[in-house]
Amino acid sequence: MNTLDYFKARLEATISPMDYLRNAQASPKRYYLIDVRNGPEHVRSITIKDANIIPQQELQERLHEIPKDKEIIVYCWDVWCNTAAKVAVLLLEHGYKVKELTGGIAAWREMDFPISESSLDLDSSKNCGC
Amino acid sequence: MNTLDYFKARLEATISPMDYLRNAQASPKRYYLIDVRNGPEHVRSITIKDANIIPQQELQERLHEIPKDKEIIVYCWDVWCNTAAKVAVLLLEHGYKVKELTGGIAAWREMDFPISESSLDLDSSKNCGC
Amino acid sequence: MNTLDYFKARLEATISPMDYLRNAQASPKRYYLIDVRNGPEHVRSITIKDANIIPQQELQERLHEIPKDKEIIVYCWDVWCNTAAKVAVLLLEHGYKVKELTGGIAAWREMDFPISESSLDLDSSKNCGC
Repeated sequence: MNTLDYFKARLEATISPMDYLRNAQASPKRYYLIDVRNGPEHVRSITIKDANIIPQQELQERLHEIPKDKEIIVYCWDVWCNTAAKVAVLLLEHGYKVKELTGGIAAWREMDFPISESSLDLDSSKNCGC
Repeated sequence: MNTLDYFKARLEATISPMDYLRNAQASPKRYYLIDVRNGPEHVRSITIKDANIIPQQELQERLHEIPKDKEIIVYCWDVWCNTAAKVAVLLLEHGYKVKELTGGIAAWREMDFPISESSLDLDSSKNCGC
Repeated sequence: MNTLDYFKARLEATISPMDYLRNAQASPKRYYLIDVRNGPEHVRSITIKDANIIPQQELQERLHEIPKDKEIIVYCWDVWCNTAAKVAVLLLEHGYKVKELTGGIAAWREMDFPISESSLDLDSSKNCGC
């Protein structure tokens, strides 16, 4: 594979936090964003705003929730996390159009982009002010 | 694509901060380094020492500034930034020899490698000592 | 290369910290982990637990130490480090089965996964409590 093909493949397979935010704001119905992180809920209570929470472990049985007519964006923890790539493979094999959000939740938070806290977390003592 | 091809493609398309610094010090005329970050000037006032500042948005109209006889190295913010990859595609399609500096300005600063501050920033109140 | 091939190639060539730790705990004899970082010993005194220390510069002459019957996992500093990829190329060309540990020592430590400190470092004044 030559260098041009390498960069084209990477750009085709991924979207940066800046590009995703700008595009999603311009075309709110274009994307279906999925947080695919596994692990205990309390460590992943902060998610990207409007993300759909479908852990990779539950994906197979929840495939029907994912719309066929949108571009699917998947993310996990960070650049070194492979969970989003695994989900991308499964969704691509099912005919979805998929990109990985580069840098996952870590890059998104570093950019100070909009996040959500799950109701679970909002109910917990550490956020109630007491 | 097999694993060997994957690694070869990555090594062909990128250069690490350590390798760039060492090679550029040994052969100062070998490279033409471009900071391709977009965004307001004040957030990108710290750049890699001796970098040429050509934001991606201005690249098309400033192509004539880029020498054909050097290896072009492009960088943006971090590993999860796609701007440098976009510029690499455009330059490769124009016949340039291009590599991306892995990790962008973030990795460079983490290594404590030489940087510049723009005159714009040096003039600003936060740096004047008052 | 299409997007599916891109993700498959990445997953074939790399393993995440979480996946490595889980698999290595389940099958302790499956992997041979190598820390391939170059540079002064004191800056790389903290390594992944049970890693074999073979700096990239010494690899050629120490190839005989690496078992042919295990999966070789290589790592360097961080996601933007190319040393592990260079070693992967050399080992693949010698017939080894190789993956890169994504994120290197930086991601491993961010996850708070088990590490070792070299005896060299344990002897040094900064760790002796005086």
